[in-house]
Amino acid sequence: MLERARCLDVGDPLKEFRERFDVPEGVIYLDGNSLGCLPKATPERLEQVVREEWGRDLIRSWNSAGWIDLSSKIGTKIAPLIGARADEVIACDSTSINLFKLISAALAMRPGRKVVLSEPGNFPTDLYMIEGLERQGLTERRLAPREALADALDGDVALLLLTHTHYKTGELFDMAALTHAAHEAGALVLWDLSHSGGALPVDLNGCEADFAVGCGYKYFNGGPGAPAYAFVAERHLKAARQPLTGWMGHAAPFAFSDDYKAAPGVEKLLCGTPPILGLAALEVGVDLVAEIGVDRLYEKSQALSEFFRQCLSERGVVLDLVSPTDPDARGSQLSFRHDEAYAICQALIARGVIGDFRDPDILRFGFAPAYLRFEDMAEAARHLAEVLETGEWQCAEFRQRAAVT
Amino acid sequence: MLERARCLDVGDPLKEFRERFDVPEGVIYLDGNSLGCLPKATPERLEQVVREEWGRDLIRSWNSAGWIDLSSKIGTKIAPLIGARADEVIACDSTSINLFKLISAALAMRPGRKVVLSEPGNFPTDLYMIEGLERQGLTERRLAPREALADALDGDVALLLLTHTHYKTGELFDMAALTHAAHEAGALVLWDLSHSGGALPVDLNGCEADFAVGCGYKYFNGGPGAPAYAFVAERHLKAARQPLTGWMGHAAPFAFSDDYKAAPGVEKLLCGTPPILGLAALEVGVDLVAEIGVDRLYEKSQALSEFFRQCLSERGVVLDLVSPTDPDARGSQLSFRHDEAYAICQALIARGVIGDFRDPDILRFGFAPAYLRFEDMAEAARHLAEVLETGEWQCAEFRQRAAVT
Repeated sequence: MLERARCLDVGDPLKEFRERFDVPEGVIYLDGNSLGCLPKATPERLEQVVREEWGRDLIRSWNSAGWIDLSSKIGTKIAPLIGARADEVIACDSTSINLFKLISAALAMRPGRKVVLSEPGNFPTDLYMIEGLERQGLTERRLAPREALADALDGDVALLLLTHTHYKTGELFDMAALTHAAHEAGALVLWDLSHSGGALPVDLNGCEADFAVGCGYKYFNGGPGAPAYAFVAERHLKAARQPLTGWMGHAAPFAFSDDYKAAPGVEKLLCGTPPILGLAALEVGVDLVAEIGVDRLYEKSQALSEFFRQCLSERGVVLDLVSPTDPDARGSQLSFRHDEAYAICQALIARGVIGDFRDPDILRFGFAPAYLRFEDMAEAARHLAEVLETGEWQCAEFRQRAAVT
Repeated sequence: MLERARCLDVGDPLKEFRERFDVPEGVIYLDGNSLGCLPKATPERLEQVVREEWGRDLIRSWNSAGWIDLSSKIGTKIAPLIGARADEVIACDSTSINLFKLISAALAMRPGRKVVLSEPGNFPTDLYMIEGLERQGLTERRLAPREALADALDGDVALLLLTHTHYKTGELFDMAALTHAAHEAGALVLWDLSHSGGALPVDLNGCEADFAVGCGYKYFNGGPGAPAYAFVAERHLKAARQPLTGWMGHAAPFAFSDDYKAAPGVEKLLCGTPPILGLAALEVGVDLVAEIGVDRLYEKSQALSEFFRQCLSERGVVLDLVSPTDPDARGSQLSFRHDEAYAICQALIARGVIGDFRDPDILRFGFAPAYLRFEDMAEAARHLAEVLETGEWQCAEFRQRAAVT
């Protein structure tokens, strides 16, 4: 297997990009869908921002280093990677905060309709942000399993909020079909691209999506807690209003007027002062993804995950796959259900194979193809087979839950 | 003047701390109230976070490097500097976002009252965040000039929201008296400490304040767009609910349940994934302020600003001071009104004296005593006198407004 893997690596058109990341020695990192690896260019760029832009040029850098436009600039770079126009995307705040803005905007655009529809088991923060607005009395949360979503789209639904690639299973929604169904029912659609952006081609405008949000620290390699991004379709830019009306979303922030006037473009999604360190790191990661290209990334991630399955199969490992078997139906991950998923995950980490666990019983492997090799797949499969064969996961130390699992 | 200044510097008990900051050669930086200087320890700390915690340890750092608790940890460090208990403060999001959370929390705690009272000319984002909630139909914004605030505190007022140190004039509110007046009227109080925290002693609990927010990138030297902080008085921690209910504010974020259950403590103010790079830089700045002590900082800033006024006076410079003449009645700044404030500010910057301009006619000088010398005061006064005498501010180049003013 290892030999075949190495042959595949030799023929890999993306092989040169691994060198652009700081992949730690002795680690097979299958958790780039939780926190992307460090691009080698990032420390130097951050050092420049810190020592020169902040340390030396100080407050002047808002103009001279373009800090004031950094959120928009990164948005224009993310835009083509998700099928958006340059003026429809902005990098800011967290995914959660951006969800709040866009759920609110959608509700205001559908007066008389109060329901936000999603699915149970969606990423928690998506569901919780609907609840926040529900507690404000501004919406009603409705959850329907994915097979029942179309039926649940009645005349009360203002917004359909779904995560394109499911965080646990990796299952993909048919963005075009569900967006169309929602529009037919008179509802708007907000797509959470956290596990899609930078991992696979997304065509927001081709699908006529209304709104989207996404995460900067997974496949965009922006660093821990990197700023997120948000998309508003050009046709809604004028009407969309969001309640987090901080000074940076004002049409003229430095006029310091008492009354809020929203910026005309997607900058109206800005709220407080932009986090420059986080944005600077995010830009490096986004630039790298743009250079590689999401089509090529997805093609390789599909090849990696299929090869991983082959390796497991050839080693006789039988695990309950909860991700779709068809690689076109899933994002860049494979998830398996196992009662001892947590302990197995810990035993793998002790061997240098970093995947992750999702409560209660999911063992999740993410395939970030910018820095993973086929050799890593063969080795990860070997380690997983050995962990299961030896039963080493039964050690007490692997069962003790850490604060973050 | 310069000689007297140098004598004062020799006797300055804080003189050693200037060496802990990277103050650029040839610059007199009177804008630490807008963006604090770079602590010399910050680049190294960030390099460690980036290369070791992110690059090498990757996702494991949420546990091993304590990322998951960083927001709370920094909160406990800020707490004693603002008269709060360790469990009442948390570092997160932006000042604007934190305003939204706490205005919302206050409104929910005063059912039947809809008004949020503030003053015209408060920092714009404070006023705009009230407007955001007003547009949601959840509040009514009422503005009253500071001398009329007490009268405006009627039975409709749920919350009094004021900025402790005024961003333009530096004027201080009497926190104890206004908090008491609001409580007498049945209202809660939210103090914006953006221009106070890290600059002067604040006693939130001594004043029986209910809520507070503040900024990390001014006197706390956390870097451009640093995370902000928020305070909830212990007696309100149980009742306070805020609508930005992201997964990090959940009592058990890694249980990944569909339903939100707020964390019991001040962690309920968390929303999305915390911005680790920004928090790491903020921690260095906060540590430095804690080491120096806010009492000593304020004492020196008062001495600096008074000395600056003396220097101006001895040079015969007559400017319209809009800050209180009594140093106990103002924060760490002096502001002057001048029709040509913008151009004068630019002419000073060209000479290496960085103050700032606030629309339409305010020339603002901030005194961040951790890294400023009395010599800087004498020199800044000389430059200002020369700029006014020579009329060099009349150059066309100094009148062209930049994007950020």
